[in-house]
Amino acid sequence: MVKLTALYRKPPNPSEFDQYFQNVHTPLVLKMPGLRKLTLAKVKSGIVGESPYYLFSEMYFDDVTALQKALASSEGRATAKDVGNFAKDIIELLVAEVEEKELAALV
Amino acid sequence: MVKLTALYRKPPNPSEFDQYFQNVHTPLVLKMPGLRKLTLAKVKSGIVGESPYYLFSEMYFDDVTALQKALASSEGRATAKDVGNFAKDIIELLVAEVEEKELAALV
Repeated sequence: MVKLTALYRKPPNPSEFDQYFQNVHTPLVLKMPGLRKLTLAKVKSGIVGESPYYLFSEMYFDDVTALQKALASSEGRATAKDVGNFAKDIIELLVAEVEEKELAALV
Repeated sequence: MVKLTALYRKPPNPSEFDQYFQNVHTPLVLKMPGLRKLTLAKVKSGIVGESPYYLFSEMYFDDVTALQKALASSEGRATAKDVGNFAKDIIELLVAEVEEKELAALV
């Protein structure tokens, strides 16, 4: 499994960002072909110090080929284009291979 | 569900880092009380450009209280102390509230 992570740094106007993200951007993300799972992780301050990040959006695909197809699709291009409408200066993207570790407690 | 994410920037010696991480650090992480899931996400270059990050280690807990208890436990303190042995200059930590989105395709 691979995931495409979009790391968003703190937006100038968080409530405006949240609204756009939820109502406009996420519906576009959910249309990407081959998307297996989407998780949103909202950063909390003050537990292990501060972070420059505000939100992680994590899009899971079967493999790199499936991700590349999704990015090249019309839905993927529409999603990428939409980023320019609300987050072009605060987004970082990365792709990672995901491995889930067994917990000793569950063995 | 909350997750504690350790973002590791590129280590000076990746294979040494990988060995220590797998053989020494991860066994300590897996002992933390209340840990529900551990996923490792190894960053891949060149698909959406370069990233300063090398590895994400994501530790899931039921809630903030469970995470705080884990960090304060002797196992949590041993894990934090061990970071100093291999990654003190390349680690960033953050805590995030995780929400899984329904996929339109699965509805």
